[in-house]
Amino acid sequence: MNEPRSSRTAYDGKLFDVVVEDWDGRDREIVVHPGSTAIVAVHDGAVVLVRQRREPARKPLLELPAGTLEGGEEPLASAQRELAEEVGLRGGRWRELGGFWTSPGFLREYMHVFLAEELEPGEAEPDEDEDVEIVRWPVAEIPERIGELEDAKTIAGLLLYLRSL
Amino acid sequence: MNEPRSSRTAYDGKLFDVVVEDWDGRDREIVVHPGSTAIVAVHDGAVVLVRQRREPARKPLLELPAGTLEGGEEPLASAQRELAEEVGLRGGRWRELGGFWTSPGFLREYMHVFLAEELEPGEAEPDEDEDVEIVRWPVAEIPERIGELEDAKTIAGLLLYLRSL
Repeated sequence: MNEPRSSRTAYDGKLFDVVVEDWDGRDREIVVHPGSTAIVAVHDGAVVLVRQRREPARKPLLELPAGTLEGGEEPLASAQRELAEEVGLRGGRWRELGGFWTSPGFLREYMHVFLAEELEPGEAEPDEDEDVEIVRWPVAEIPERIGELEDAKTIAGLLLYLRSL
Repeated sequence: MNEPRSSRTAYDGKLFDVVVEDWDGRDREIVVHPGSTAIVAVHDGAVVLVRQRREPARKPLLELPAGTLEGGEEPLASAQRELAEEVGLRGGRWRELGGFWTSPGFLREYMHVFLAEELEPGEAEPDEDEDVEIVRWPVAEIPERIGELEDAKTIAGLLLYLRSL
């Protein structure tokens, strides 16, 4: 499995494009996204989550801090930027917990998940159109609260973290 | 958080559409998908996975059997149809393990994850454009093999299953 014979852009968007690729004569309709990161940030014995309105879900969701790779950014640098902007945590020790395709039947989005520890608190700098509530779950409470989550990266990321302890 | 003020279709696709919704004067670009299911199917002490080429990832991926909700289908009925078609397992006892948004920043796709046990083997009926290899992992080997996976629903689904044991 190498490359498609040809590809045409069917939709040219701001966050993502849609391409139709010809694979051995079969058309495949694919959403093309730059890729993303999510962070399991542990600070003062608690994991830091964000609750924000999610128009695709038509309700607020509780999620790991996460963001989109911007213009050639390295995943680790992107994750560190996102965590500082969204929740104001900086520095610390980082390592990659895992990574995955978020919906690989039709979406070209690979997400890197990092664990960040020993972070230093500071000021968040949210985008003006982001209304983010920060929520802390003590690590010991994560197992009993997993059922409250409705976001794939957050379920996968927190369960990967618990297994790493 | 209720409904957008207005919505226009920016791309009308086969698997999904793209809409631009106006939420309080801000445009949100959203991929609209009918929703999907994935199945943790346990048979003869092993979980049944499928390996198939995934053009979005440009390589084959090992995943839970999964599929798209078709025209008003109930999630459980859809999951049972997919498991029979893809891997030939029918009947059995089913329950919902969980569910999640797959990439809720821009994608309206909610996935239901079911656990299926005590299944009866039979013939698979794959679509002609599906080239699916069936892979069985003994349940006892799942913990050490999670790191081989690169698909969010499969990581989340198998870890939710292990926690349920």
